Amino acid sequence: MKITPQSIRIGTRSLPAQGGFLHAQSALDLLGLPFPADWEAFARTHTLTAPTRDFGCGPEATLSLPEFVRLGFAAQTPQARRWQKSAHTLIARMLAGDVRLSAQIAEANPDPQAQRWLHARLENQNARKALMSTVARHGGSELVYGQLGSISNRSVLGSDSATLRRERGVKSTRDGLNTEELLRLSYLESATARAIEERGVHGNEAILGVHRQLAERERQTWGGQRPASRAELSPSQAG
Amino acid sequence: MKITPQSIRIGTRSLPAQGGFLHAQSALDLLGLPFPADWEAFARTHTLTAPTRDFGCGPEATLSLPEFVRLGFAAQTPQARRWQKSAHTLIARMLAGDVRLSAQIAEANPDPQAQRWLHARLENQNARKALMSTVARHGGSELVYGQLGSISNRSVLGSDSATLRRERGVKSTRDGLNTEELLRLSYLESATARAIEERGVHGNEAILGVHRQLAERERQTWGGQRPASRAELSPSQAG
Repeated sequence: MKITPQSIRIGTRSLPAQGGFLHAQSALDLLGLPFPADWEAFARTHTLTAPTRDFGCGPEATLSLPEFVRLGFAAQTPQARRWQKSAHTLIARMLAGDVRLSAQIAEANPDPQAQRWLHARLENQNARKALMSTVARHGGSELVYGQLGSISNRSVLGSDSATLRRERGVKSTRDGLNTEELLRLSYLESATARAIEERGVHGNEAILGVHRQLAERERQTWGGQRPASRAELSPSQAG
Repeated sequence: MKITPQSIRIGTRSLPAQGGFLHAQSALDLLGLPFPADWEAFARTHTLTAPTRDFGCGPEATLSLPEFVRLGFAAQTPQARRWQKSAHTLIARMLAGDVRLSAQIAEANPDPQAQRWLHARLENQNARKALMSTVARHGGSELVYGQLGSISNRSVLGSDSATLRRERGVKSTRDGLNTEELLRLSYLESATARAIEERGVHGNEAILGVHRQLAERERQTWGGQRPASRAELSPSQAG
Protein backbone atom coordinates (compact mmCIF):
# COMPACT_ATOMS: atom_id res chain seq x y z
CA MET A 1 0.00 0.00 0.00
CA LYS A 2 3.06 2.23 -0.31
CA ILE A 3 3.30 2.60 -4.09
CA THR A 4 1.76 5.83 -5.31
CA PRO A 5 0.42 6.46 -8.79
CA GLN A 6 1.79 8.84 -11.39
CA SER A 7 -1.69 10.12 -12.09
CA ILE A 8 -4.78 10.50 -9.93
CA ARG A 9 -8.29 10.22 -11.26
CA ILE A 10 -10.66 13.00 -10.24
CA GLY A 11 -14.10 12.56 -11.74
CA THR A 12 -13.58 11.92 -15.43
CA ARG A 13 -10.14 13.52 -15.52
CA SER A 14 -6.78 12.05 -14.79
CA LEU A 15 -4.40 14.54 -13.19
CA PRO A 16 -0.60 14.23 -13.27
CA ALA A 17 0.73 13.29 -9.85
CA GLN A 18 4.03 12.32 -8.25
CA GLY A 19 4.20 10.31 -5.05
CA GLY A 20 0.60 11.10 -4.20
CA PHE A 21 0.99 14.85 -4.82
CA LEU A 22 -1.04 16.50 -7.58
CA HIS A 23 0.53 18.76 -10.19
CA ALA A 24 -0.72 22.07 -8.76
CA GLN A 25 -1.32 23.84 -12.05
CA SER A 26 -3.46 20.97 -13.43
CA ALA A 27 -5.36 20.70 -10.15
CA LEU A 28 -6.14 24.42 -10.01
CA ASP A 29 -7.15 24.30 -13.66
CA LEU A 30 -9.68 21.55 -12.87
CA LEU A 31 -11.19 23.88 -10.26
CA GLY A 32 -11.27 26.78 -12.71
CA LEU A 33 -8.66 28.69 -10.68
CA PRO A 34 -5.81 30.50 -12.45
CA PHE A 35 -2.29 29.46 -11.47
CA PRO A 36 -1.07 32.34 -9.25
CA ALA A 37 1.75 34.54 -10.50
CA ASP A 38 3.26 34.40 -7.01
CA TRP A 39 2.95 30.79 -5.84
CA GLU A 40 4.78 31.46 -2.56
CA ALA A 41 2.26 34.09 -1.53
CA PHE A 42 -0.69 31.92 -2.63
CA ALA A 43 0.74 28.97 -0.67
CA ARG A 44 1.16 31.14 2.44
CA THR A 45 -2.41 32.49 2.19
CA HIS A 46 -3.89 28.99 1.87
CA THR A 47 -1.40 27.18 4.16
CA LEU A 48 -0.18 24.90 1.38
CA THR A 49 2.93 22.95 2.28
CA ALA A 50 3.20 20.20 -0.35
CA PRO A 51 6.73 19.88 -1.80
CA THR A 52 7.73 20.62 -5.39
CA ARG A 53 8.04 17.64 -7.73
CA ASP A 54 9.56 17.13 -11.14
CA PHE A 55 6.97 16.31 -13.81
CA GLY A 56 9.49 16.41 -16.62
CA CYS A 57 10.34 20.12 -16.83
CA GLY A 58 12.05 20.74 -13.49
CA PRO A 59 10.52 21.24 -10.03
CA GLU A 60 6.90 22.38 -10.01
CA ALA A 61 4.40 23.18 -7.25
CA THR A 62 2.15 20.38 -6.04
CA LEU A 63 -0.93 20.01 -3.85
CA SER A 64 -1.47 17.20 -1.39
CA LEU A 65 -4.89 15.54 -1.73
CA PRO A 66 -6.19 17.15 1.50
CA GLU A 67 -5.00 20.54 0.20
CA PHE A 68 -6.76 19.97 -3.12
CA VAL A 69 -9.99 19.02 -1.33
CA ARG A 70 -9.77 22.08 0.93
CA LEU A 71 -9.25 24.45 -2.03
CA GLY A 72 -11.99 22.65 -3.98
CA PHE A 73 -14.56 23.23 -1.26
CA ALA A 74 -13.51 26.85 -0.73
CA ALA A 75 -13.50 27.89 -4.40
CA GLN A 76 -16.60 29.47 -5.93
CA THR A 77 -15.96 29.00 -9.67
CA PRO A 78 -18.51 27.08 -11.76
CA GLN A 79 -15.94 24.28 -12.13
CA ALA A 80 -15.39 24.11 -8.37
CA ARG A 81 -19.16 24.08 -7.77
CA ARG A 82 -19.46 21.13 -10.16
CA TRP A 83 -16.66 19.35 -8.37
CA GLN A 84 -18.33 20.05 -4.99
CA LYS A 85 -21.55 18.50 -6.26
CA SER A 86 -19.74 15.36 -7.36
CA ALA A 87 -17.97 15.22 -3.99
CA HIS A 88 -21.38 15.47 -2.25
CA THR A 89 -22.60 12.51 -4.28
CA LEU A 90 -19.53 10.49 -3.35
CA ILE A 91 -20.09 11.17 0.36
CA ALA A 92 -23.74 10.10 0.08
CA ARG A 93 -22.73 6.90 -1.73
CA MET A 94 -20.12 6.22 0.93
CA LEU A 95 -22.68 6.56 3.72
CA ALA A 96 -25.00 4.22 1.82
CA GLY A 97 -22.29 1.52 1.71
CA ASP A 98 -22.17 1.54 -2.10
CA VAL A 99 -19.88 -1.35 -3.06
CA ARG A 100 -19.44 0.05 -6.54
CA LEU A 101 -17.69 2.99 -4.95
CA SER A 102 -15.76 0.52 -2.80
CA ALA A 103 -14.53 -1.18 -5.98
CA GLN A 104 -13.64 2.14 -7.62
CA ILE A 105 -11.52 3.17 -4.66
CA ALA A 106 -9.72 -0.17 -4.58
CA GLU A 107 -9.04 0.12 -8.30
CA ALA A 108 -7.63 3.61 -7.85
CA ASN A 109 -4.90 2.07 -5.72
CA PRO A 110 -1.97 1.13 -7.95
CA ASP A 111 -0.50 -1.37 -5.48
CA PRO A 112 -1.57 -4.93 -6.42
CA GLN A 113 -1.09 -5.89 -2.75
CA ALA A 114 -3.77 -3.40 -1.70
CA GLN A 115 -6.55 -5.52 -3.21
CA ARG A 116 -5.14 -8.60 -1.51
CA TRP A 117 -5.33 -6.71 1.77
CA LEU A 118 -8.94 -5.73 1.08
CA HIS A 119 -9.90 -9.35 0.43
CA ALA A 120 -8.13 -10.44 3.62
CA ARG A 121 -9.81 -7.65 5.58
CA LEU A 122 -13.33 -8.54 4.43
CA GLU A 123 -12.69 -12.26 4.82
CA ASN A 124 -11.49 -11.61 8.35
CA GLN A 125 -14.78 -9.94 9.21
CA ASN A 126 -16.68 -12.94 7.82
CA ALA A 127 -14.55 -15.43 9.76
CA ARG A 128 -15.13 -13.43 12.95
CA LYS A 129 -18.89 -13.31 12.39
CA ALA A 130 -19.03 -17.05 11.66
CA LEU A 131 -17.12 -17.81 14.88
CA MET A 132 -19.45 -15.57 16.90
CA SER A 133 -22.53 -17.29 15.58
CA THR A 134 -21.03 -20.74 16.26
CA VAL A 135 -20.19 -19.63 19.81
CA ALA A 136 -23.75 -18.39 20.33
CA ARG A 137 -25.15 -21.75 19.20
CA HIS A 138 -22.83 -23.56 21.61
CA GLY A 139 -23.86 -21.80 24.79
CA GLY A 140 -21.28 -19.03 24.76
CA SER A 141 -22.41 -15.96 26.67
CA GLU A 142 -21.57 -12.29 26.52
CA LEU A 143 -18.12 -12.14 28.12
CA VAL A 144 -16.69 -14.89 25.95
CA TYR A 145 -16.72 -12.80 22.76
CA GLY A 146 -14.19 -10.29 24.03
CA GLN A 147 -12.08 -13.03 25.58
CA LEU A 148 -11.89 -14.97 22.30
CA GLY A 149 -10.72 -11.82 20.55
CA SER A 150 -8.08 -11.20 23.23
CA ILE A 151 -6.70 -14.71 22.87
CA SER A 152 -6.55 -14.34 19.06
CA ASN A 153 -4.82 -10.97 19.32
CA ARG A 154 -2.26 -12.02 21.91
CA SER A 155 -1.45 -15.16 19.99
CA VAL A 156 -1.21 -13.74 16.46
CA LEU A 157 -0.26 -10.13 17.16
CA GLY A 158 1.59 -10.58 20.45
CA SER A 159 -0.36 -7.69 21.88
CA ASP A 160 -3.78 -6.56 23.02
CA SER A 161 -5.90 -4.54 20.65
CA ALA A 162 -5.70 -1.23 22.57
CA THR A 163 -1.88 -1.32 22.53
CA LEU A 164 -1.89 -2.25 18.88
CA ARG A 165 -4.21 0.60 17.93
CA ARG A 166 -1.96 3.02 19.79
CA GLU A 167 1.27 1.63 18.34
CA ARG A 168 -0.01 1.56 14.76
CA GLY A 169 -2.01 4.78 14.95
CA VAL A 170 -5.38 3.39 13.84
CA LYS A 171 -8.89 3.72 15.24
CA SER A 172 -10.05 0.24 14.28
CA THR A 173 -7.73 -2.66 15.15
CA ARG A 174 -8.35 -4.49 11.88
CA ASP A 175 -7.22 -1.45 9.87
CA GLY A 176 -3.83 -1.68 11.53
CA LEU A 177 -3.16 -5.28 10.57
CA ASN A 178 -1.24 -6.44 7.54
CA THR A 179 -2.50 -9.08 5.09
CA GLU A 180 -0.57 -11.85 6.82
CA GLU A 181 -1.95 -11.02 10.25
CA LEU A 182 -5.50 -10.83 8.89
CA LEU A 183 -5.05 -14.19 7.19
CA ARG A 184 -3.73 -15.80 10.38
CA LEU A 185 -6.63 -14.44 12.45
CA SER A 186 -9.19 -15.62 9.89
CA TYR A 187 -7.56 -19.03 9.81
CA LEU A 188 -7.39 -19.37 13.58
CA GLU A 189 -10.96 -18.23 14.17
CA SER A 190 -12.30 -20.47 11.40
CA ALA A 191 -10.39 -23.42 12.87
CA THR A 192 -11.89 -22.74 16.31
CA ALA A 193 -15.42 -22.48 14.91
CA ARG A 194 -14.91 -25.79 13.16
CA ALA A 195 -13.51 -27.49 16.28
CA ILE A 196 -16.39 -26.21 18.45
CA GLU A 197 -18.87 -27.75 16.01
CA GLU A 198 -17.03 -31.02 15.57
CA ARG A 199 -16.29 -31.65 19.22
CA GLY A 200 -19.75 -30.49 20.33
CA VAL A 201 -18.14 -28.13 22.85
CA HIS A 202 -20.53 -26.22 25.14
CA GLY A 203 -20.21 -23.16 27.39
CA ASN A 204 -17.68 -20.35 27.86
CA GLU A 205 -14.88 -22.26 29.56
CA ALA A 206 -14.88 -25.16 27.12
CA ILE A 207 -15.00 -22.77 24.14
CA LEU A 208 -12.09 -20.73 25.46
CA GLY A 209 -10.14 -23.93 26.10
CA VAL A 210 -10.51 -25.01 22.48
CA HIS A 211 -9.51 -21.59 21.24
CA ARG A 212 -6.39 -21.42 23.45
CA GLN A 213 -5.29 -24.82 22.22
CA LEU A 214 -5.75 -23.95 18.55
CA ALA A 215 -4.11 -20.54 19.00
CA GLU A 216 -1.02 -22.26 20.38
CA ARG A 217 -0.93 -24.74 17.53
CA GLU A 218 -1.42 -22.06 14.90
CA ARG A 219 1.46 -20.09 16.37
CA GLN A 220 3.71 -23.12 16.26
CA THR A 221 2.76 -23.84 12.65
CA TRP A 222 3.41 -20.28 11.62
CA GLY A 223 6.43 -19.35 13.64
CA GLY A 224 8.11 -22.70 14.26
CA GLN A 225 9.80 -22.69 17.64
CA ARG A 226 9.35 -18.97 18.27
CA PRO A 227 7.35 -18.38 21.47
CA ALA A 228 4.50 -15.87 21.59
CA SER A 229 5.89 -12.47 22.44
CA ARG A 230 4.32 -10.80 25.47
CA ALA A 231 1.56 -13.40 25.42
CA GLU A 232 0.36 -15.25 28.44
CA LEU A 233 -2.33 -17.31 26.87
CA SER A 234 -3.30 -19.56 29.71
CA PRO A 235 -2.09 -20.59 33.15
CA SER A 236 -0.56 -23.78 31.75
CA GLN A 237 1.65 -21.78 29.40
CA ALA A 238 2.76 -19.36 32.05
CA GLY A 239 4.32 -22.22 34.05
CA MET B 1 -27.63 -4.88 -2.86
CA LYS B 2 -31.24 -4.01 -2.17
CA ILE B 3 -31.42 -4.50 1.60
CA THR B 4 -31.07 -1.25 3.49
CA PRO B 5 -29.90 -0.91 7.07
CA GLN B 6 -31.94 0.24 10.04
CA SER B 7 -29.13 2.51 11.15
CA ILE B 8 -26.46 4.40 9.24
CA ARG B 9 -23.04 5.12 10.65
CA ILE B 10 -21.86 8.71 10.30
CA GLY B 11 -18.42 9.22 11.80
CA THR B 12 -18.53 7.69 15.27
CA ARG B 13 -22.33 7.91 15.57
CA SER B 14 -24.97 5.51 14.39
CA LEU B 15 -28.15 7.27 13.25
CA PRO B 16 -31.58 5.62 13.13
CA ALA B 17 -32.61 4.98 9.54
CA GLN B 18 -35.40 3.27 7.63
CA GLY B 19 -34.95 2.02 4.09
CA GLY B 20 -31.92 4.22 3.56
CA PHE B 21 -33.60 7.36 4.94
CA LEU B 22 -32.18 9.02 8.05
CA HIS B 23 -34.36 9.97 11.01
CA ALA B 24 -34.42 13.74 10.34
CA GLN B 25 -34.36 14.88 13.95
CA SER B 26 -31.29 12.75 14.79
CA ALA B 27 -29.55 13.85 11.60
CA LEU B 28 -30.15 17.56 12.25
CA ASP B 29 -29.01 17.05 15.84
CA LEU B 30 -25.71 15.60 14.59
CA LEU B 31 -25.22 18.80 12.57
CA GLY B 32 -26.10 20.97 15.57
CA LEU B 33 -29.28 22.19 13.87
CA PRO B 34 -32.53 22.48 15.88
CA PHE B 35 -35.48 20.47 14.59
CA PRO B 36 -37.72 23.12 12.95
CA ALA B 37 -41.10 23.85 14.52
CA ASP B 38 -42.60 23.92 11.01
CA TRP B 39 -41.07 20.99 9.13
CA GLU B 40 -43.13 21.61 5.99
CA ALA B 41 -41.76 25.13 5.64
CA PHE B 42 -38.19 23.97 6.37
CA ALA B 43 -38.55 21.18 3.79
CA ARG B 44 -39.82 23.66 1.18
CA THR B 45 -36.97 26.09 1.84
CA HIS B 46 -34.33 23.37 1.50
CA THR B 47 -36.09 21.30 -1.21
CA LEU B 48 -36.32 18.22 0.99
CA THR B 49 -38.57 15.52 -0.42
CA ALA B 50 -37.73 12.37 1.58
CA PRO B 51 -40.86 10.52 2.80
CA THR B 52 -41.93 10.10 6.41
CA ARG B 53 -41.06 6.79 8.07
CA ASP B 54 -42.18 5.07 11.24
CA PHE B 55 -39.36 4.70 13.77
CA GLY B 56 -41.64 3.31 16.44
CA CYS B 57 -43.74 6.35 17.36
CA GLY B 58 -45.70 6.99 14.18
CA PRO B 59 -44.57 8.71 10.96
CA GLU B 60 -41.60 11.05 11.32
CA ALA B 61 -39.68 13.24 8.90
CA THR B 62 -36.60 11.73 7.23
CA LEU B 63 -33.68 12.95 5.13
CA SER B 64 -32.26 11.07 2.17
CA LEU B 65 -28.48 10.71 2.28
CA PRO B 66 -27.94 13.30 -0.48
CA GLU B 67 -30.23 15.70 1.43
CA PHE B 68 -28.25 15.14 4.62
CA VAL B 69 -24.97 15.79 2.81
CA ARG B 70 -26.35 18.96 1.22
CA LEU B 71 -27.56 20.32 4.57
CA GLY B 72 -24.30 19.26 6.21
CA PHE B 73 -22.20 21.26 3.77
CA ALA B 74 -24.49 24.29 3.96
CA ALA B 75 -24.74 24.48 7.76
CA GLN B 76 -22.34 26.71 9.71
CA THR B 77 -22.64 25.30 13.24
CA PRO B 78 -19.49 24.03 14.99
CA GLN B 79 -20.87 20.47 14.69
CA ALA B 80 -21.46 20.90 10.94
CA ARG B 81 -17.96 22.32 10.50
CA ARG B 82 -16.55 19.27 12.25
CA TRP B 83 -18.60 17.00 10.01
CA GLN B 84 -17.41 18.93 6.93
CA LYS B 85 -13.80 18.41 7.97
CA SER B 86 -14.33 14.68 8.32
CA ALA B 87 -16.06 14.62 4.92
CA HIS B 88 -13.04 16.41 3.41
CA THR B 89 -10.77 13.73 4.84
CA LEU B 90 -12.96 11.00 3.38
CA ILE B 91 -12.81 12.57 -0.08
CA ALA B 92 -9.02 12.84 0.11
CA ARG B 93 -8.75 9.18 1.18
CA MET B 94 -11.06 8.18 -1.65
CA LEU B 95 -8.88 9.98 -4.23
CA ALA B 96 -5.82 8.28 -2.75
CA GLY B 97 -7.37 4.83 -3.31
CA ASP B 98 -7.35 4.03 0.42
CA VAL B 99 -8.41 0.38 0.67
CA ARG B 100 -9.19 0.79 4.36
CA LEU B 101 -11.94 3.16 3.33
CA SER B 102 -12.95 0.68 0.65
CA ALA B 103 -13.37 -1.97 3.36
CA GLN B 104 -15.32 0.40 5.62
CA ILE B 105 -17.78 1.20 2.85
CA ALA B 106 -18.27 -2.47 2.02
CA GLU B 107 -18.87 -3.21 5.69
CA ALA B 108 -21.45 -0.44 5.91
CA ASN B 109 -23.52 -2.39 3.39
CA PRO B 110 -25.82 -4.74 5.29
CA ASP B 111 -26.42 -7.03 2.30
CA PRO B 112 -24.12 -10.09 2.53
CA GLN B 113 -24.35 -10.40 -1.27
CA ALA B 114 -22.78 -6.96 -1.68
CA GLN B 115 -19.39 -8.20 -0.54
CA ARG B 116 -19.67 -11.19 -2.88
CA TRP B 117 -20.29 -8.69 -5.68
CA LEU B 118 -17.25 -6.66 -4.68
CA HIS B 119 -15.03 -9.75 -4.76
CA ALA B 120 -16.42 -10.72 -8.17
CA ARG B 121 -15.90 -7.18 -9.44
CA LEU B 122 -12.27 -6.98 -8.38
CA GLU B 123 -11.55 -10.51 -9.53
CA ASN B 124 -13.04 -9.62 -12.90
CA GLN B 125 -10.59 -6.76 -13.27
CA ASN B 126 -7.71 -9.11 -12.46
CA ALA B 127 -8.88 -11.75 -14.95
CA ARG B 128 -9.18 -9.08 -17.62
CA LYS B 129 -5.68 -7.73 -16.92
CA ALA B 130 -4.21 -11.25 -16.98
CA LEU B 131 -5.85 -11.95 -20.35
CA MET B 132 -4.56 -8.68 -21.79
CA SER B 133 -1.01 -9.42 -20.73
CA THR B 134 -1.22 -12.95 -22.16
CA VAL B 135 -2.53 -11.52 -25.42
CA ALA B 136 0.32 -9.02 -25.56
CA ARG B 137 2.88 -11.81 -25.07
CA HIS B 138 1.24 -13.79 -27.90
CA GLY B 139 1.47 -11.20 -30.62
CA GLY B 140 -1.93 -9.56 -30.11
CA SER B 141 -2.02 -5.97 -31.32
CA GLU B 142 -4.11 -2.95 -30.44
CA LEU B 143 -7.46 -3.71 -32.08
CA VAL B 144 -7.73 -7.17 -30.59
CA TYR B 145 -8.32 -5.90 -27.04
CA GLY B 146 -11.62 -4.27 -27.87
CA GLN B 147 -12.69 -7.20 -30.01
CA LEU B 148 -12.04 -9.70 -27.23
CA GLY B 149 -14.20 -7.62 -24.91
CA SER B 150 -16.97 -7.42 -27.50
CA ILE B 151 -17.01 -11.19 -27.91
CA SER B 152 -17.12 -11.70 -24.12
CA ASN B 153 -19.94 -9.18 -23.76
CA ARG B 154 -22.05 -10.52 -26.61
CA SER B 155 -21.62 -14.07 -25.39
CA VAL B 156 -22.21 -13.59 -21.66
CA LEU B 157 -24.42 -10.48 -21.64
CA GLY B 158 -26.10 -10.88 -25.03
CA SER B 159 -25.38 -7.25 -25.76
CA ASP B 160 -22.62 -4.78 -26.49
CA SER B 161 -21.27 -2.65 -23.69
CA ALA B 162 -22.69 0.68 -24.90
CA THR B 163 -26.23 -0.77 -25.03
CA LEU B 164 -25.74 -2.36 -21.64
CA ARG B 165 -24.55 0.87 -20.05
CA ARG B 166 -27.58 2.66 -21.45
CA GLU B 167 -30.05 -0.06 -20.43
CA ARG B 168 -28.69 -0.38 -16.92
CA GLY B 169 -27.97 3.31 -16.37
CA VAL B 170 -24.30 3.00 -15.44
CA LYS B 171 -21.19 4.84 -16.59
CA SER B 172 -18.84 1.88 -16.34
CA THR B 173 -20.01 -1.42 -17.87
CA ARG B 174 -18.63 -3.53 -15.02
CA ASP B 175 -20.69 -1.58 -12.48
CA GLY B 176 -23.86 -2.64 -14.26
CA LEU B 177 -23.15 -6.37 -14.08
CA ASN B 178 -24.41 -8.73 -11.43
CA THR B 179 -22.22 -11.18 -9.53
CA GLU B 180 -23.10 -14.05 -11.86
CA GLU B 181 -22.25 -12.10 -14.99
CA LEU B 182 -18.94 -10.94 -13.50
CA LEU B 183 -18.10 -14.51 -12.54
CA ARG B 184 -18.88 -15.81 -16.03
CA LEU B 185 -16.75 -13.11 -17.68
CA SER B 186 -13.83 -13.80 -15.32
CA TYR B 187 -14.13 -17.51 -15.99
CA LEU B 188 -14.33 -17.09 -19.76
CA GLU B 189 -11.42 -14.67 -19.98
CA SER B 190 -9.27 -16.82 -17.68
CA ALA B 191 -10.07 -19.88 -19.80
CA THR B 192 -9.05 -18.02 -22.95
CA ALA B 193 -5.78 -16.81 -21.39
CA ARG B 194 -5.03 -20.39 -20.39
CA ALA B 195 -5.85 -21.78 -23.84
CA ILE B 196 -3.70 -19.16 -25.60
CA GLU B 197 -0.73 -20.18 -23.44
CA GLU B 198 -1.29 -23.93 -23.75
CA ARG B 199 -1.89 -24.00 -27.48
CA GLY B 200 0.88 -21.50 -28.20
CA VAL B 201 -1.55 -19.39 -30.24
CA HIS B 202 -0.09 -16.34 -32.01
CA GLY B 203 -1.57 -13.19 -33.57
CA ASN B 204 -4.94 -11.42 -33.53
CA GLU B 205 -6.96 -13.81 -35.70
CA ALA B 206 -5.83 -16.95 -33.92
CA ILE B 207 -6.44 -15.34 -30.51
CA LEU B 208 -9.95 -14.24 -31.49
CA GLY B 209 -10.65 -17.74 -32.85
CA VAL B 210 -9.78 -19.32 -29.50
CA HIS B 211 -11.88 -16.80 -27.63
CA ARG B 212 -14.94 -17.30 -29.86
CA GLN B 213 -14.70 -21.04 -29.41
CA LEU B 214 -14.42 -20.84 -25.63
CA ALA B 215 -17.20 -18.23 -25.43
CA GLU B 216 -19.52 -20.62 -27.25
CA ARG B 217 -18.60 -23.50 -24.96
CA GLU B 218 -18.99 -21.42 -21.82
CA ARG B 219 -22.44 -20.33 -22.98
CA GLN B 220 -23.46 -23.93 -23.55
CA THR B 221 -22.17 -24.98 -20.14
CA TRP B 222 -24.01 -22.17 -18.42
CA GLY B 223 -27.23 -22.01 -20.33
CA GLY B 224 -27.62 -25.56 -21.63
CA GLN B 225 -29.41 -25.50 -24.99
CA ARG B 226 -30.31 -21.81 -24.85
CA PRO B 227 -28.77 -19.94 -27.80
CA ALA B 228 -26.98 -16.63 -27.29
CA SER B 229 -29.48 -13.81 -27.50
CA ARG B 230 -28.67 -11.12 -30.05
CA ALA B 231 -25.17 -12.53 -30.42
CA GLU B 232 -23.50 -13.18 -33.73
CA LEU B 233 -20.21 -14.39 -32.53
CA SER B 234 -18.64 -15.62 -35.71
CA PRO B 235 -19.59 -16.31 -39.34
CA SER B 236 -19.85 -20.06 -38.65
CA GLN B 237 -22.52 -19.44 -36.03
CA ALA B 238 -24.51 -17.06 -38.18
CA GLY B 239 -25.00 -19.78 -40.81
